[in-house]
Amino acid sequence: MALFEALLELADDHLVLGHRLSEWCGHAPMLEEDLAMPNMALDLIGTARNLYAYAGEVEGKGQSEDDLAYLRDERAYRNLLLVERPNEDFAHTMLRQLYFAAFMHPYWQAALSSSDETVRGIAGKAVKEMAYHIRHAGEWVVRLGDGTEESARRMKDAVFALSIYVDELFEEGAGDDALPSRAAIRPVFDKTIARIFDEAGLESLEVPFPQSGGRDGRHGEGLGHMLAEMQSVYRAHPGASW
Amino acid sequence: MALFEALLELADDHLVLGHRLSEWCGHAPMLEEDLAMPNMALDLIGTARNLYAYAGEVEGKGQSEDDLAYLRDERAYRNLLLVERPNEDFAHTMLRQLYFAAFMHPYWQAALSSSDETVRGIAGKAVKEMAYHIRHAGEWVVRLGDGTEESARRMKDAVFALSIYVDELFEEGAGDDALPSRAAIRPVFDKTIARIFDEAGLESLEVPFPQSGGRDGRHGEGLGHMLAEMQSVYRAHPGASW
Repeated sequence: MALFEALLELADDHLVLGHRLSEWCGHAPMLEEDLAMPNMALDLIGTARNLYAYAGEVEGKGQSEDDLAYLRDERAYRNLLLVERPNEDFAHTMLRQLYFAAFMHPYWQAALSSSDETVRGIAGKAVKEMAYHIRHAGEWVVRLGDGTEESARRMKDAVFALSIYVDELFEEGAGDDALPSRAAIRPVFDKTIARIFDEAGLESLEVPFPQSGGRDGRHGEGLGHMLAEMQSVYRAHPGASW
Repeated sequence: MALFEALLELADDHLVLGHRLSEWCGHAPMLEEDLAMPNMALDLIGTARNLYAYAGEVEGKGQSEDDLAYLRDERAYRNLLLVERPNEDFAHTMLRQLYFAAFMHPYWQAALSSSDETVRGIAGKAVKEMAYHIRHAGEWVVRLGDGTEESARRMKDAVFALSIYVDELFEEGAGDDALPSRAAIRPVFDKTIARIFDEAGLESLEVPFPQSGGRDGRHGEGLGHMLAEMQSVYRAHPGASW
């Protein structure tokens, strides 16, 4: 069941980050972002849906995409710690998005030559979306990092807060031959971040104590609350027809 | 300035309904709707953005789309009462969406032959979106109205609660030659609703005391709260570059 587990990890990453981004709904700092952030959230939730559906199929126990998304508890969620980090401010949100997309873009690119046809299909859609996310979030990281004193300070705070979650991106997790090696993504990721940080006047930090544990269900305190809210309607009326 | 005022009315309708719909973000009853509702919200907010931008241009006083959306108070908002009604449950939300789209679809269709090129452009995009909203919300109204005892009861409650806001859709408001007559939309609207209600086993209600006042800034108590939340980030940092 390595493929099932690995699909679930990926699906959880996308769903959790999509929901974090959705929390900006109605609070975006400008109309442009009131469109861009939900659009990115939809990309992520759409991919999550495809991954859950395929995970359910691979498992073969009749679990639907909704069962997998809405009926598992916090401890059963396998997402990376990075994606569950709170929005904080626009600087944090855009940096978190950049880190994730800078990883997922080369990941999906590698997945385009997977032996698994469904994985190739999911990758084909996602790789274009992730290229856009890098561009959009990257532009904001530059704009803020190279902006006012206040915006540069916020960007630096975000780097300080989020750097410790980057290493976990490269841990292999469940793994499966049908999916790319995560460790092999590192050089491309580092290059993307270095290019954007350079333009933004930001420095990457040494991280003496990287955080991990998300793949084992050891999450921060915010995730449980987010899942409770996300799952409440479905759980109140499981499989409801209204 | 009739055109400016009329564009503002339309823009407010779209922005407020888009934001109401966005409030489902993270609480949708299933993954399918976790995608469909934000997608419809984005359609509405996208149209609002185009309308605000054009309104600002028509006014010619240098107000940006963000100024118009984020710096006007509740009393200055001209939206219909229908669109600000709270989400309540899925039945209310889908019926509200159906009422709005069943009006806007023929409205934009008429606007396709406007004398104003920008209005024609906005209509061209919106007319397709509204056709989808009628289809999507209409399917849910049928599915719920013709579903379980519980879902049918909820659908009837929604009709009872929202019918009183329908007449306001057809009030002319600011009006302008470049925009369609609202009153003329009534027959097409009634036909759409009758067809869907018939399939859903729902009955239209006689409305002895229709509600209105949204065009004059007389809103329900929920709108102020929604706008305060929506406008908070922009107002805290007006024109901020971070």
